[in-house]
Amino acid sequence: MSQQTGKLTTASPGVAEMMDELGRRAREAASELALCPGSQRNHALQAAADSIRDSADAILDANRADMEAAEKRELSTPLLDRLALNAERLESMATGLETVSELPDPVGRVLAEWDRPNGLHIQRVAVPLGVIGIIYESRPNVTADAAGLCTKSGNAAILRGGSESFHSNQAIFRSLAEGLASAGMPRAAIQMVPTTDRAAVGYLLSSMGDTIDVLVPRGGKSLIERVQAEARVPVIGHLEGICHVFLHESADQNMAREIVLNAKMRRTGICGAAETLLVDRKAASRLIPGVVDALVDAGCEVRGDEAVREIVSEAKPADEQDWHTEYLDAVISVRIIDGVEGAIEHIRLYGSGHTESIVAEDEVAARKFLTEVDSAIVMHNVSTQFADGAEFGMGAEIGIATGRIHARGPVGAEQLTSYKYVVRGNGQVRP
Amino acid sequence: MSQQTGKLTTASPGVAEMMDELGRRAREAASELALCPGSQRNHALQAAADSIRDSADAILDANRADMEAAEKRELSTPLLDRLALNAERLESMATGLETVSELPDPVGRVLAEWDRPNGLHIQRVAVPLGVIGIIYESRPNVTADAAGLCTKSGNAAILRGGSESFHSNQAIFRSLAEGLASAGMPRAAIQMVPTTDRAAVGYLLSSMGDTIDVLVPRGGKSLIERVQAEARVPVIGHLEGICHVFLHESADQNMAREIVLNAKMRRTGICGAAETLLVDRKAASRLIPGVVDALVDAGCEVRGDEAVREIVSEAKPADEQDWHTEYLDAVISVRIIDGVEGAIEHIRLYGSGHTESIVAEDEVAARKFLTEVDSAIVMHNVSTQFADGAEFGMGAEIGIATGRIHARGPVGAEQLTSYKYVVRGNGQVRP
Repeated sequence: MSQQTGKLTTASPGVAEMMDELGRRAREAASELALCPGSQRNHALQAAADSIRDSADAILDANRADMEAAEKRELSTPLLDRLALNAERLESMATGLETVSELPDPVGRVLAEWDRPNGLHIQRVAVPLGVIGIIYESRPNVTADAAGLCTKSGNAAILRGGSESFHSNQAIFRSLAEGLASAGMPRAAIQMVPTTDRAAVGYLLSSMGDTIDVLVPRGGKSLIERVQAEARVPVIGHLEGICHVFLHESADQNMAREIVLNAKMRRTGICGAAETLLVDRKAASRLIPGVVDALVDAGCEVRGDEAVREIVSEAKPADEQDWHTEYLDAVISVRIIDGVEGAIEHIRLYGSGHTESIVAEDEVAARKFLTEVDSAIVMHNVSTQFADGAEFGMGAEIGIATGRIHARGPVGAEQLTSYKYVVRGNGQVRP
Repeated sequence: MSQQTGKLTTASPGVAEMMDELGRRAREAASELALCPGSQRNHALQAAADSIRDSADAILDANRADMEAAEKRELSTPLLDRLALNAERLESMATGLETVSELPDPVGRVLAEWDRPNGLHIQRVAVPLGVIGIIYESRPNVTADAAGLCTKSGNAAILRGGSESFHSNQAIFRSLAEGLASAGMPRAAIQMVPTTDRAAVGYLLSSMGDTIDVLVPRGGKSLIERVQAEARVPVIGHLEGICHVFLHESADQNMAREIVLNAKMRRTGICGAAETLLVDRKAASRLIPGVVDALVDAGCEVRGDEAVREIVSEAKPADEQDWHTEYLDAVISVRIIDGVEGAIEHIRLYGSGHTESIVAEDEVAARKFLTEVDSAIVMHNVSTQFADGAEFGMGAEIGIATGRIHARGPVGAEQLTSYKYVVRGNGQVRP
């Protein structure tokens, strides 16, 4: 591809050579993995889980180095929370790998099967995607989740974690690689870019179309903007999570309070955290005081439009920018709108297509919301924090895709497959 | 997105404004279409078919203008064949629209459904992709097929046909638009770029990421190279069709001859036409003479490697470039290789991931080929010319995708859908 020449100049020759070599090795591993039976892939996942447990000390040491550097750089509390590892989080990484190993094999599934009048028998059969590039930030458990899901689905992976979690990621990666290799997986099945040089990200995005089948970026706004500007490789996109909770006129007061509180405050740094609360005008005075009190008591800053501030004086003013903001922090914007139509319209204008939930006893209103809101995940009487692959029963996820092609919503092992058609006949020629 | 500013300079301001307006209108139409019931979409397809029949004279007049211009420009015979319309091809366009209208509704299908231990009920439901951009060359029936499939799947479409079929496409488009509108579809459901200015293609590729959800390019090498170099929008890729037929040692002699003859010569200008014949060394002297005689009798030029030319002296020499070539003409390259392994290896090196067929009585060999050849379509004892959406029972196709993400193989109405998750609960919050 002609654009590669231009892009190469932005990466130092060393980075380009290193990345090409990672790509070449991944491609080879992918051919081998495509024919690797599910039982062996599952066994490798169990070995990787054991290896993570055996390497706990080394991984926590490496994480300590990352945390110290991050504290010096005065990273925000939610970012520090994302970066931190402890025994419990390590165990949940290992359990995650085991859970994934127990899922049904996504490869080889017959997705559809039919006969044609001329006797042709056609099957659509799931196959691995091939080589998956994953670019992610801060949270080191993504290293294990991504490696686990790629192994489960028979794909080779090239991982590129954030610089702030570099040591943690390398330690987790070394441990995983050890485990996978002990179970006979190709050495290059999972590889990690061994540098924090940002040129490596540029090279992944722009110059590896021949070796990478799809890129999964997972990170903040600056990463996403870079992907949008530079990617020459297919991307399963994860954009912002500007998630909404809408309290319909018919909402139960207690349920409304509990869902909003949980959707916003259970963990504020995840993409499924609610950022904006929409309240039906007809129930505003009934619902808002209790909900806002609960939020404020939990330490949340509440920003409201004028109508909201007439009801609860403790709310700070919200401006246009607030409706566009993914706070990822203990802040929520609150707006009063008119009915389901108003909620749908607000979400159409300001939503990021991630997850939105309606709280309503009225089934007709709920059905309208679920049908007409065009987001990856739409919910009825559920906290948006359930927007998560593990909570969906997929074992783990690489991210929540907000794009519309290939995969939408949580990206688990099944979403990391492609398919092919197998056509059987007995000498048919086309008239 | 920052790259838009740079790209805008390559399109004249008029083109950019025109394309933005098409995009804006398509986006609006897509929201409306997403809620349009299947019965109305099917009714619209029938109306479009009637309209095509009613406009036959006008369409054939327009096609005559294109054909005259093409003959003056001395286009090759296969290209002229692709461009030509007649009463029969028009009728098959209309029938295609009717067939598509009779297919099951791809929108609203519940693709999966399950309950979680905490009582959440999760559904994965098919929804339209949104706005689809389709860039295609020469063959004017793509206008009807693309419009039909996009209508069926509830998508808005922006069509951009090749300059050589400009008049034919415009006439078909006007007729379709009339029919669709008469059935109450939004006027902007299907739009066509009303200019042959190549800047419009550049703008579609690079600057419409906000309004186009996916681009489907369908055309020759130069279009594909341009798409690879310039696209900033997700692409469902259609590359070359370097299709292979492999005659295994166990192949039946008559079946081998009939399949090769049909795969190569039934129609040479389609992407499912065979370009290279691989013959198992153990059966070369038994199979090659009869197959080559039949090809030569049918007017096909045969190019063979040295081993082939020792068996049949009428074969011209094939060189390395032949294995890489999609002739789209009455030419075939023939190579002798060693067994299934040799065939798999040749296809891995030279194939384009489109369609490959093994002719074999030996089931074990066939299974190995079907499993290990990594192409969108793999066949056993079938002519590669069946690589076609209509032949697969999909009613019609926009093309055969050779990429691995979203859709692979024939792209029909079902492949033009995305999905969303609908999650129902009764107040669940995440612990």
